[in-house]
Amino acid sequence: MTQILKGNIVAAPELGRLDITEHGYLTAEDGKITGVFADLPERYRQCDVQDWGDCLILQAPADMHVHGPQYAMMGLGLDKPLLEWLQSYAFPTERRFTDLGFAREVYRRLAHDLIANGTTRVAMFSSLHTDATLVLMEELEKAGIVGLVGKVNMDQNGAEGLQETTEGSMAETLRWLEGCERFTRVRPVLTPRFVPSCTGELLAFLGRLAAERDLPVQSHLSENHQEIELVARLHPDCPNYGGVYAKYGLWTDRTLMAHCVHSDGAERAAMKAAGVTVVHCPNSNNSICSGIAPVRKMLDEGLKVALGTDVAGGSHLSMFGAVEDALRCSKDRRILDNWETPHLTVAEAWYLATTAGERFFGAKGGFAPGDPLHAVVLDDSRLLTPYPLTVRDRFERCVYQRQDGWLRAVWSEGRQVL
Amino acid sequence: MTQILKGNIVAAPELGRLDITEHGYLTAEDGKITGVFADLPERYRQCDVQDWGDCLILQAPADMHVHGPQYAMMGLGLDKPLLEWLQSYAFPTERRFTDLGFAREVYRRLAHDLIANGTTRVAMFSSLHTDATLVLMEELEKAGIVGLVGKVNMDQNGAEGLQETTEGSMAETLRWLEGCERFTRVRPVLTPRFVPSCTGELLAFLGRLAAERDLPVQSHLSENHQEIELVARLHPDCPNYGGVYAKYGLWTDRTLMAHCVHSDGAERAAMKAAGVTVVHCPNSNNSICSGIAPVRKMLDEGLKVALGTDVAGGSHLSMFGAVEDALRCSKDRRILDNWETPHLTVAEAWYLATTAGERFFGAKGGFAPGDPLHAVVLDDSRLLTPYPLTVRDRFERCVYQRQDGWLRAVWSEGRQVL
Repeated sequence: MTQILKGNIVAAPELGRLDITEHGYLTAEDGKITGVFADLPERYRQCDVQDWGDCLILQAPADMHVHGPQYAMMGLGLDKPLLEWLQSYAFPTERRFTDLGFAREVYRRLAHDLIANGTTRVAMFSSLHTDATLVLMEELEKAGIVGLVGKVNMDQNGAEGLQETTEGSMAETLRWLEGCERFTRVRPVLTPRFVPSCTGELLAFLGRLAAERDLPVQSHLSENHQEIELVARLHPDCPNYGGVYAKYGLWTDRTLMAHCVHSDGAERAAMKAAGVTVVHCPNSNNSICSGIAPVRKMLDEGLKVALGTDVAGGSHLSMFGAVEDALRCSKDRRILDNWETPHLTVAEAWYLATTAGERFFGAKGGFAPGDPLHAVVLDDSRLLTPYPLTVRDRFERCVYQRQDGWLRAVWSEGRQVL
Repeated sequence: MTQILKGNIVAAPELGRLDITEHGYLTAEDGKITGVFADLPERYRQCDVQDWGDCLILQAPADMHVHGPQYAMMGLGLDKPLLEWLQSYAFPTERRFTDLGFAREVYRRLAHDLIANGTTRVAMFSSLHTDATLVLMEELEKAGIVGLVGKVNMDQNGAEGLQETTEGSMAETLRWLEGCERFTRVRPVLTPRFVPSCTGELLAFLGRLAAERDLPVQSHLSENHQEIELVARLHPDCPNYGGVYAKYGLWTDRTLMAHCVHSDGAERAAMKAAGVTVVHCPNSNNSICSGIAPVRKMLDEGLKVALGTDVAGGSHLSMFGAVEDALRCSKDRRILDNWETPHLTVAEAWYLATTAGERFFGAKGGFAPGDPLHAVVLDDSRLLTPYPLTVRDRFERCVYQRQDGWLRAVWSEGRQVL
């Protein structure tokens, strides 16, 4: 099957680089991109062209850190400090996922709303409930979303109704992995909630599982100071927070670590050496007052950094919004650093939201030939135009001016899903 | 004429205080509020009730700093530093307002979109073009918006095509004021762009005009460090930036000063003494990297602080968004102050967006009897509910979860305008 999309094609293949092809052609065969062309190649001359006129055609973004169950409580309780927020809002919500009817309702809506926001790839936390996690994976796959979902492991420092025994957690993880076999697009990722919520025994089990079954891993790292101090008390033998994950075999180039707001130079160097991907979550870092992550520094040091909404520490589901949040966070960082650190540009933040995440999934990114087709069509024709705008100007504006109905089409792994 | 609105009524009469009347009645006669009641008073028993079911009924917000012409370029160029942004985006846009057809198109859309966002009161900058300013006032008034609009004065340090002679600026100001006589809801406010763009002669003229005709004043103050240094060089006789406005009679309890990010203790004390209202513009302060305003400190010191979108240094028109921006800014400030300064709560930020602005217009705020009826009805029924929520929870969530079509109705000065 050949697909040809015509429009103003914007790709972010490298940090800070934008490749813009005005009124160009994005082509795919059997769901894989074959190229971006200013003129349609001879071999496609007989094929149907989907002409999107003056619309923008962008890579579909990847949300690399999002808590599925918390979607039900997005925007609630954000005046509260972290622990009170967890106890009063997040945990009561997560507890409800023993109810599979409720899970089905929330996860169907979540899957729909992800697509409606143009997000086609995710790395997502579920709750600790095995069956609800399988419902989540089913609903995502049905909607056409691709990526990773993890049943959460938590055998200490949990909350009422939200803690497993060590043995229970291991057994449920194996049962969950068995249940995952039927899914082809949404695959499992091992998900210890974070170091304080897992015993060493459980972490060691998960590390062995990751190695034996070649599974990716996701967790949280150095989000706030209290958490870092707690981890230091729990694991005095480890050099830092990240060292705990490393000790248990959960620290590889298939590892996603959310936040890393307060990772020091040694921890950042360890991430770089191991090939760990940082998932920057600017909205959440602000919402629950964690801090202002030094993203420019991480990028300058050569770390891999992708972007996440972190719903519902983050207050919205839009990755276009997450790009705006990343820009705002980097401008805060600039102010905080006495205007000495350059803020991110829209092109850079958009790269974090797209190619950086795609690479974790094995793609090259930036509409590279061979990659699965993940794309969105944006129609900005209803916006005011003070004078003729470049495609680059229009692309930049789209991050800030998100309009109802502007998303005209979405493709995920070559399939049109909106 | 009697109006009775039934729903969950949320009022913010004082900083941090929320008065919530579940399934209550908000009543008005001839466009003026007569009260909020848990039970409908006897005298209204025969009147029609508009029953909004489980919806929220809130005060309509007031945008106290917004640049009308820049709406045409909202979201453009925000990667650029201030001066380049002005030269490449803002000034080319403002220059176009010699074209009254263009002005009509932009201002009609702006007026419509303000109402669509629930904003019914504004303090707005126009450009220096007298005729386009009158078009702006006409379109706002037609749409049902109430408030202040100012023709901008700029007789030095302008840009090509965007500078007046001193005499020209004075004459055009008088011509504009004459043109304003036909408007009843949208009234003039004297608007020197900021100190660097006006000669002392022009500032003195505007100060006399303010006194003679009892006119309010709006301008910018202490937005960024370079600007403050420039003002100090231009006016070495004045103790600080604000002192220049004071020297020329532009510093009273009818004065709005946007930004005040870097106002020091003396300048803040002078604002308090004179009764000047600070207009906090958190989105813009971040977008163009001005700084992180110490709003909590200003409030603790007893300054009057209202809220503005500052389109298009600000990237959106929604005052619900401005509330979210104010919360984010205050959380940044908390982080910056080593977690020692309490961030704003939703209730506090909402007070800044409503009652604080209303008071500048002579209302008491918080749905007080005698105030003109400005209200919005929000329908959050499409949002997910993890467990039964309080009205307060739902109100707080609405700031973060702004949905398409959630605004069911808007009243401005007693008139239903949406």
